[in-house]
Amino acid sequence: MTCVERAPAESYDLEKIFNPKRVAIVGVSSNGMGFGSAILSALIAIGFEGKMYPVNPKGGEFLGLKIYKEVSEIPDEIDFAIISVPASNVPAALDACRKKGAAGAEILSAGFRETATPEGIALEEEILEEARKGIRVIGPNCFGIYCPKSGLTLLPGPDLSRESGEVAFLSQSGGMAIDFGQIGTWMGVRFSKVVSFGNGVDLRECELLDYFGDDPETSVIAMYVEGVEKGSNFFSVLREVAEKKPVIVYKGGLSDAGSKAVKSHTASMGGSERIWKAVLRQCNAVQVHGLEEMAEASLTFSLVPPRSYEGISVVGGGGALGVAACDVAETYGLKLPVLEEKISDRIMSILPKPGSSAFNPVDVANPLVSPQILKDTLLFAAEDDKIDLQILIQLLYHYKSLAMALGAASVKDVTPYRELADSVEEVVDKTGKPVIIVLPNNKRELQSMDLEEMIRDARDIFLKKKIPVFDDLFDALRAVHHVSKYYAIKQRRWKEL
Amino acid sequence: MTCVERAPAESYDLEKIFNPKRVAIVGVSSNGMGFGSAILSALIAIGFEGKMYPVNPKGGEFLGLKIYKEVSEIPDEIDFAIISVPASNVPAALDACRKKGAAGAEILSAGFRETATPEGIALEEEILEEARKGIRVIGPNCFGIYCPKSGLTLLPGPDLSRESGEVAFLSQSGGMAIDFGQIGTWMGVRFSKVVSFGNGVDLRECELLDYFGDDPETSVIAMYVEGVEKGSNFFSVLREVAEKKPVIVYKGGLSDAGSKAVKSHTASMGGSERIWKAVLRQCNAVQVHGLEEMAEASLTFSLVPPRSYEGISVVGGGGALGVAACDVAETYGLKLPVLEEKISDRIMSILPKPGSSAFNPVDVANPLVSPQILKDTLLFAAEDDKIDLQILIQLLYHYKSLAMALGAASVKDVTPYRELADSVEEVVDKTGKPVIIVLPNNKRELQSMDLEEMIRDARDIFLKKKIPVFDDLFDALRAVHHVSKYYAIKQRRWKEL
Repeated sequence: MTCVERAPAESYDLEKIFNPKRVAIVGVSSNGMGFGSAILSALIAIGFEGKMYPVNPKGGEFLGLKIYKEVSEIPDEIDFAIISVPASNVPAALDACRKKGAAGAEILSAGFRETATPEGIALEEEILEEARKGIRVIGPNCFGIYCPKSGLTLLPGPDLSRESGEVAFLSQSGGMAIDFGQIGTWMGVRFSKVVSFGNGVDLRECELLDYFGDDPETSVIAMYVEGVEKGSNFFSVLREVAEKKPVIVYKGGLSDAGSKAVKSHTASMGGSERIWKAVLRQCNAVQVHGLEEMAEASLTFSLVPPRSYEGISVVGGGGALGVAACDVAETYGLKLPVLEEKISDRIMSILPKPGSSAFNPVDVANPLVSPQILKDTLLFAAEDDKIDLQILIQLLYHYKSLAMALGAASVKDVTPYRELADSVEEVVDKTGKPVIIVLPNNKRELQSMDLEEMIRDARDIFLKKKIPVFDDLFDALRAVHHVSKYYAIKQRRWKEL
Repeated sequence: MTCVERAPAESYDLEKIFNPKRVAIVGVSSNGMGFGSAILSALIAIGFEGKMYPVNPKGGEFLGLKIYKEVSEIPDEIDFAIISVPASNVPAALDACRKKGAAGAEILSAGFRETATPEGIALEEEILEEARKGIRVIGPNCFGIYCPKSGLTLLPGPDLSRESGEVAFLSQSGGMAIDFGQIGTWMGVRFSKVVSFGNGVDLRECELLDYFGDDPETSVIAMYVEGVEKGSNFFSVLREVAEKKPVIVYKGGLSDAGSKAVKSHTASMGGSERIWKAVLRQCNAVQVHGLEEMAEASLTFSLVPPRSYEGISVVGGGGALGVAACDVAETYGLKLPVLEEKISDRIMSILPKPGSSAFNPVDVANPLVSPQILKDTLLFAAEDDKIDLQILIQLLYHYKSLAMALGAASVKDVTPYRELADSVEEVVDKTGKPVIIVLPNNKRELQSMDLEEMIRDARDIFLKKKIPVFDDLFDALRAVHHVSKYYAIKQRRWKEL
């Protein structure tokens, strides 16, 4: 289903927009200043492989590329345009790009409806008219499109990952789009497509959501939304798409003050917290309240098998951590079932004593317990039918003392995180039950950069094996809750049909 | 007021315990294994300046110190003892230390009431009998005392800060004590005294809280509690102490499952969430739900002037951040009042355009705006009577692109965070209104260690100027909420008297 009457989405249009071969960048100055030059540099830095045609009335050259004085001078058809010229020049630029064959354009320029001036509003109307002539518009007042497969990137996104993944993100706010791209990059979220659509004069939440719902490259959809154009249309598309794949929604401006701030940001109308919460629940959309929570949920949805997880085991050192695990799990409606006695006994037989306990959470007593023992603990615990998913907390920073005591050159040399990653991978393969790793870092002072580096290296190694990694047990449990709840409701609704 | 009948706290006793000149460490083995050797190494590493007398029946030497075969062989009186011998030998060791003049002893050994065995319970009774003869006991099943002034440290705390501060922490859990000491170290929390009291056979929450209430070195008290011995006594002490200074309480085991986990951890009885919440509110204690939240509240209480903060200004780049700021502020009952028009206009006159806005939140549009402009923005905003406290968000990681564009050797060379710290200090001095800094890091991949290092360096520079630093706007607003609410209630109650 589509929800915009004026211009039904033809999927080949959007394909051409996400994967252009020939791109005009209108508004590149040869001195390197401004958004146009920044986006061109970013495209080169990220390794966009298509042809790039910079345009500026002054001509010249930038980063070895000839700058054309007019769009019409480009000696080729174009597929897509990136426009960054003063607001009043945007309609003409758009017209020129359409005539060159562009299927779409992203407009980075600001100065339209969000200014709440008659001039700004009129200019935005002109853009819409241009769009209706046959060019899809992303923006204005946006940071554009990031598509790792084709090498399109956001402003200012020269260092986003080129690795493609299954998560699509759509956002009114350009700042949120680049923030989410950056957070995703280190956290291990990999994207199919990211679209920042700003004022959303043409393409916006409704049609994009519908497109991602059918996009075979996308299995998880995340979105930051400040306000929607047509509430009832949006919610019917959301319900339909959320039946196919998880849709994670971060709604900004739910408070009174936030709702006012939305107006001067992306010129949208908000809506009350109560209504949004109720409607998102009805649609089985996953509601989150921050970017990191959204990234954590996206990561978990994309890496663990699609099902509901009732019983969790938590394995790690420190009794108080176990207490906290229980408290947080209960907050999120997750269970940490007591392990069967014979399984507990087997685990206890391999753990150091005193100080350990093996009911669940399993307290391994000593943060330096070997990967072999942790592997066996996880294997034993997985034999309990009540356990669907396991969380392993590893306080790797404690190896620093060992490194100092042994006079090791580097803490990496004495910390068996590579072996641990192999062990955990083996556990997941053998048991079919996912394991999530938590790598907290309580030693974040300037003098302990070596620990930070090691923990990041460990994170990357686990992620390469498709094992989700978190900094914090609370965040891990919250993410599991989101996944679990989504599939539980989905399953229940299927049964009811 | 004191709440333990059997042994009224004489404050000189505790002073001697926190600042001992001569310490026996009972249970140090010459091969360096075990808790006794670990704590002795930690004392040496942190630079404890008193005399240390290791004891072990086998004698020998460790780290250049002679190991005495018996406590009675120590050629001196002792002030304090650290005991780490098998549970069954603890009562005799305690007796010997008392006879040598020790005012107190911390017992690191486990194997007592927390095992729920008749032997463990009986041994703990014996310890209590020894204590009654005239030696104060911390523990058993604890990680001991950290006192930066004297150089006593926790197990395993060789690298905690030697800088003294105003925050006291008491905890049943040893793990929570060392975690909080470590988190505090990087976050900038500085401690007067930290006590991990484990099973709490003698000294525990009630008496320690009372002591910290009168301790001139302590202005903020934080505590992790799993269960209390005598509820009514504890709450009357808590109410009394919270009238004098802020008491931040993290109650573990509020859930059903958590409450069960508490039993096998520190052998305490929990209590329901509803009751705890109500009682903590009545006492005007500050309830938190995690260690980082507790550290953030402690930091803010210790660095901003003691008063309630109604109106907050938020200054930073990115419109969506402003929307989020409003949403979160409202959640915490804080206001972001719209700035007076003439102030807004003055701010707009110095900000880059387009993209900026100056109602509050103030969107500076560009993350590379100079410290001079940020200083003036903060100075102007502070002129509004509705503003009591300001939050400045700085996305320092954006300077990486500038460093790359300029071909700078290091991102530190182009990022003006030292100038910014000077500017912010000047603003605080001139306006008398505190400023809190938020330094998010969205680029936490392995390849960006330089950004992490720079942000940690910036954090330390701000902290040296007594300016609180947070990673995250949400956390900063939550901490301000805790401070503000505590003083608002305190003030209201004073008026009612």
